[in-house]
Amino acid sequence: MADKKLVEAITSMDEDFAQWYTDVVKKAELIDYTSVKGCMVIKPAGYAIWELIQKQLDERFKATGVENVYLPMFIPESLLQKEKDHVEGFAPEVAWVTHGGLQPLQERLCVRPTSETLFCDFYKNDIHSYRDLPKVYNQWCSVVRWEKETRPFLRSREFLWQEGHTAHATMEEAEERTIQMLNIYADFCEQVLAMPVIKGRKTDKEKFAGAESTYTIEALMHDGKALQSGTSHNFGDGFAKAFGIQFTDRDNTLKYVYQTSWGMTTRLIGAIIMVHGDNSGLVLPPKVAPTQIMIIPIQQKKEGVLDTAYQLRDRLSNFRVKVDDSDKSPGWKFSEQEMRGIPIRVEIGPKDIEAGKCVICRRDTREKIEVALDELEAKAGELLEQIQKDMLERARAHRDSHTYTARNMEELEEILNSKPGFVKAMWCGDQACEDTIKEKFAATSRCMPFEQEQISDTCVCCGKPAKKMVYWGRAY
Amino acid sequence: MADKKLVEAITSMDEDFAQWYTDVVKKAELIDYTSVKGCMVIKPAGYAIWELIQKQLDERFKATGVENVYLPMFIPESLLQKEKDHVEGFAPEVAWVTHGGLQPLQERLCVRPTSETLFCDFYKNDIHSYRDLPKVYNQWCSVVRWEKETRPFLRSREFLWQEGHTAHATMEEAEERTIQMLNIYADFCEQVLAMPVIKGRKTDKEKFAGAESTYTIEALMHDGKALQSGTSHNFGDGFAKAFGIQFTDRDNTLKYVYQTSWGMTTRLIGAIIMVHGDNSGLVLPPKVAPTQIMIIPIQQKKEGVLDTAYQLRDRLSNFRVKVDDSDKSPGWKFSEQEMRGIPIRVEIGPKDIEAGKCVICRRDTREKIEVALDELEAKAGELLEQIQKDMLERARAHRDSHTYTARNMEELEEILNSKPGFVKAMWCGDQACEDTIKEKFAATSRCMPFEQEQISDTCVCCGKPAKKMVYWGRAY
Repeated sequence: MADKKLVEAITSMDEDFAQWYTDVVKKAELIDYTSVKGCMVIKPAGYAIWELIQKQLDERFKATGVENVYLPMFIPESLLQKEKDHVEGFAPEVAWVTHGGLQPLQERLCVRPTSETLFCDFYKNDIHSYRDLPKVYNQWCSVVRWEKETRPFLRSREFLWQEGHTAHATMEEAEERTIQMLNIYADFCEQVLAMPVIKGRKTDKEKFAGAESTYTIEALMHDGKALQSGTSHNFGDGFAKAFGIQFTDRDNTLKYVYQTSWGMTTRLIGAIIMVHGDNSGLVLPPKVAPTQIMIIPIQQKKEGVLDTAYQLRDRLSNFRVKVDDSDKSPGWKFSEQEMRGIPIRVEIGPKDIEAGKCVICRRDTREKIEVALDELEAKAGELLEQIQKDMLERARAHRDSHTYTARNMEELEEILNSKPGFVKAMWCGDQACEDTIKEKFAATSRCMPFEQEQISDTCVCCGKPAKKMVYWGRAY
Repeated sequence: MADKKLVEAITSMDEDFAQWYTDVVKKAELIDYTSVKGCMVIKPAGYAIWELIQKQLDERFKATGVENVYLPMFIPESLLQKEKDHVEGFAPEVAWVTHGGLQPLQERLCVRPTSETLFCDFYKNDIHSYRDLPKVYNQWCSVVRWEKETRPFLRSREFLWQEGHTAHATMEEAEERTIQMLNIYADFCEQVLAMPVIKGRKTDKEKFAGAESTYTIEALMHDGKALQSGTSHNFGDGFAKAFGIQFTDRDNTLKYVYQTSWGMTTRLIGAIIMVHGDNSGLVLPPKVAPTQIMIIPIQQKKEGVLDTAYQLRDRLSNFRVKVDDSDKSPGWKFSEQEMRGIPIRVEIGPKDIEAGKCVICRRDTREKIEVALDELEAKAGELLEQIQKDMLERARAHRDSHTYTARNMEELEEILNSKPGFVKAMWCGDQACEDTIKEKFAATSRCMPFEQEQISDTCVCCGKPAKKMVYWGRAY
């Protein structure tokens, strides 16, 4: 049984989801607030999750030929202004550096909110011939957007991310890379974060500032709100024309390159919390759990108990395993292991040792399983795999059971007001209908999914002939 | 033979070392200049070296209990000002953010030049009891210092680094951690970068702004100039008192914590270039070579040559290996492999295949070795180990043969004017003598080495009784 004091300390998610979320990020020691308004400290338990995300995502990138680079964190104002749509989208929310040392700068610099303009400025000098293409570069860094309202991981003034920026000889190749990276993101979310996503394209209203098309993966949180979890943009040759990025093709003519960019952020940690967490705290998918197994000795002062715990730890060294040998009570340790979302705990006490067994407790289902000590490694491995799979299936079942269809505004209203989740509904393609829905119900078009269905023949809003099925929802 | 055109393209290091350095960083494609004055693009070949440094250094950190975190990149002006010496040292060279979005900020923020003040602000809330100690945190990030003169890797307005920041219950424990990290740095430089270093303590004049003591590792570059390659600082309880970081000790009294910080930067890539490089370009130690083996097919259009090259690559997959199958000439490929510092190239052509052998060429010595194809894996592994060792020994021999002793100002002047290198000489402990030597010879005290020798009984400068042996030199 988990310790009462700790469990009582977090708000129930059914009572107040936002407060539950804040309680979990604090109690699981993922972040701390700082004197710098809107910025957070990512503490060891939070940063270790990010390191596991980075490592596994970076491997997937590199397997497709991505190379990592590092570009400056500052963008001169004149550079930011070169692409019209882009500057309109970002200028209102950047931080400006106006002084270097004791001198005012001749031109102010913004702290990068995203690096399209810097990559363009770099590619302009780096690309000359078709032999220099494609360029498939990525960087891991932090970016700054001067948000008014902030929430840990979900929206903060500074956040960590990766941003891929590529240049290609043809539009087809750029489109292929855009979709390829979206697929990597979707696969990563499902296989590593145990989080199913909807793949689709953003409407023009929702696309990235300066992009020709933006693709997105959308996940559903436990409270029925959507979270945009990764985006991939095809810029066509718009940026290339604004920045003059040209190459000599095989036919000896000068052509503009076609570009893409794609990014994922520390927001994913927020997604993990809100997809898998429960009223005892965080629940981590084994593949991103910094500690996968916590061994908790019972009556640890009795002879042989701690020794056995250490032996089990050494035998489990293929996994990320720890022994909690602190002087806290077992109940307190259980609560902490649960709060931190550690997938498996192994309980081992004098009676277990005598009987040659131990008890494994799954964090996700709280199921307790007796395991013979000599089968522990095999069983732990099996269980971690099973937990990873089960978490994905539960998240998928939750998403599917919270996905609805609407054929007209009455149905849409009824659902949005009483059943939090995704709503599938047809759309005429007119931005006015998106505006109406947003204004009336505070819901946005999440994406036009690749897997289209014919819910009805007419637009859910205006009743004119429908062009696309759209996922609608309230979103973070 | 390396291709003439490429080789001629770089300045000889004996003719103009600074230009040679600039040529290498450009031709080996490590960096590119940008529109952002004083900031650089770290290109794939440069960033991959940094990734290998990060990985191997981070593993060594974690083995000693270091945990990674991430703190904001901004420091409110009032926070920077809390520790008097620290703000004096850094305020003249920071970049100031004065506007967020369209609004002026109420308090301006500097972009972190280093994060002592942020860690203090965080620890103040995070540390309450002796149970919370020690804190041994580190972050990998970029920092900004508004330098007037910049050089790729060695001095740029933004650079990448790691900064460790720890808090301890006692001064002894803080001192132990300070030295432990210095030892890790020194060991890393020798074992991974094949670069011998002198370990020692900085004089008060040269120590970090706000530190009680600063320890350093100093390496000697090929041109005889010193490079400070890593530093570790013991702050005592100075920052703790300025920020109010207190804990309740076991005896139930309130005490201030003792703190340390330690850092290494992308400057190390500059060190690698200047310790190991030659007139054909970069020479990388195998442990930080993104590509360790380049297979270069000869007469690659002949049947079977490329296939064999790919087979060899697959057999060498325990190493970081590539085939250069571009349509360039073998000579050109040799030059490129040499310029990029790839430790081993394997030449394989139709005659080699017929004879069941290939030719291995070492980048460091240019030695060519015939190897039977069925011994290739074993031989390549041996050679990479040998190269790593030999590079360290050559660098050590160069350093030792460029280390001199001086007993008075005449000897010091003669050496500094004609024999670039380290000069060991005694010092009375008075800063006036350091000032004089700096003014007269543009040389600084690099460190008071742990391994002291008695060169003479009197200070090299003033002739008063000597207290310490000091390494002097001109430095980057």
